[in-house]
Amino acid sequence: MYPLEIDRAIDGRASRGVLGILGGMGPAATADFYRKLVAATPAVTDQDHIPVVVVGDPRILDRAQAIGTRAESDVLAGMLQRLRHLERAGVDAVAMPCNTAHYWLPGLRAATDIPFISLVEASVAEARRHAVHARTVLVLGTAATVNSRIYEAELARSAFISVVPEPEQQEEVNRIIAFVKAGAVRDAQARFEAASESWCRQADVVLLACTELPLAAERMLQDRNNLIDTTDALAKACVAWFSAMDGAGR
Amino acid sequence: MYPLEIDRAIDGRASRGVLGILGGMGPAATADFYRKLVAATPAVTDQDHIPVVVVGDPRILDRAQAIGTRAESDVLAGMLQRLRHLERAGVDAVAMPCNTAHYWLPGLRAATDIPFISLVEASVAEARRHAVHARTVLVLGTAATVNSRIYEAELARSAFISVVPEPEQQEEVNRIIAFVKAGAVRDAQARFEAASESWCRQADVVLLACTELPLAAERMLQDRNNLIDTTDALAKACVAWFSAMDGAGR
Repeated sequence: MYPLEIDRAIDGRASRGVLGILGGMGPAATADFYRKLVAATPAVTDQDHIPVVVVGDPRILDRAQAIGTRAESDVLAGMLQRLRHLERAGVDAVAMPCNTAHYWLPGLRAATDIPFISLVEASVAEARRHAVHARTVLVLGTAATVNSRIYEAELARSAFISVVPEPEQQEEVNRIIAFVKAGAVRDAQARFEAASESWCRQADVVLLACTELPLAAERMLQDRNNLIDTTDALAKACVAWFSAMDGAGR
Repeated sequence: MYPLEIDRAIDGRASRGVLGILGGMGPAATADFYRKLVAATPAVTDQDHIPVVVVGDPRILDRAQAIGTRAESDVLAGMLQRLRHLERAGVDAVAMPCNTAHYWLPGLRAATDIPFISLVEASVAEARRHAVHARTVLVLGTAATVNSRIYEAELARSAFISVVPEPEQQEEVNRIIAFVKAGAVRDAQARFEAASESWCRQADVVLLACTELPLAAERMLQDRNNLIDTTDALAKACVAWFSAMDGAGR
């Protein structure tokens, strides 16, 4: 019934926990998260890395379109079925590398005993670490993420003031996200780089609050600036969780 | 019992098949495979992508060390447990982005009804497509992959002659793989680039027959040359499988 539990006997290696990844929203972002998780893990051999089970199922209905409609409950149902799969695999925590999907986080948390490592909480904490005295944050994401104010409460808790993107700015962000989802990453990068200078001037910190955006911002993220990669923030939070399980002597 | 099967009703979208990924051997290679799979898929929206379930469990014993020892059967047992997990998830085919692991492919195929999309078969077919008149192939991989002649039969079937790496060359390949596994990708790239010119002269085609090597060869693979990325070959074979399922009217 729980094959990854049984493994712990065969492999002769005490496990510190298995991370479940509720992914596929979208697939490129999930692959990017997996890569950043591996890169953020202090490891010398394969066996030092975090065991993961990924359900990367892109058939879940479009989250951005569903918010505010009757399809909201269908999206939650779709997510819950993938979550049940992760539960049966015996995962010890769940990460969901999709900002818009965090609209459903309260519903997901209410439906399981397995802890979720929140991308929103991880990203705001990372923004605070990165910019201790920063006041304003520009949240760039899907219109759904921005309009449903997924980040609002968490930003306020960390004493940040949220800056709302202008309508034409939001349209450009939408286009960049669509290019990444369609696999046209180079086009997305060119558009992002053309726009980013003015965006970075609008607030002390710019949150790339859609997991497609760090793919478009790859070259910009290499320079030290005020962009926060939410995918990377989630990866680091997962590594911290895994290390803490070790500290707890498991 | 089969949560990803049940989904097909909820999401209102006929599925063309779910791909299981037996991964974590190693984790960086699995993440790289996932990225290449997404990039190779003709898609406009998330929902066009291949649904995947990844078991990325790096606790499986070291494959390269196990070959030829009594640990061989433990490795197979560990792989079979992860395979059972994928079976329960209802996957329709399995891909395993690790060359050395294909030493156990006959044992895995004998133990399941789910078809494996072989990385070895995909890579040799890709080499033949890439270089129609080529005769010689240099197989670069772990010493275990090279010594256990995983590619031998498949290369012969495609009328290729296999070139064996020199001992000092094998040592350098081992070092490059170890750097990637430890996350030192830039060091691995520098070493790969320093050595690759002489390697590429040794045969008509050079197979990067360890899924860590394409990560070290990233910049070299952008130029058109005689290197074959086995991770990418597997990704393309999986996309072809998925497209064929569509053609079959599922």
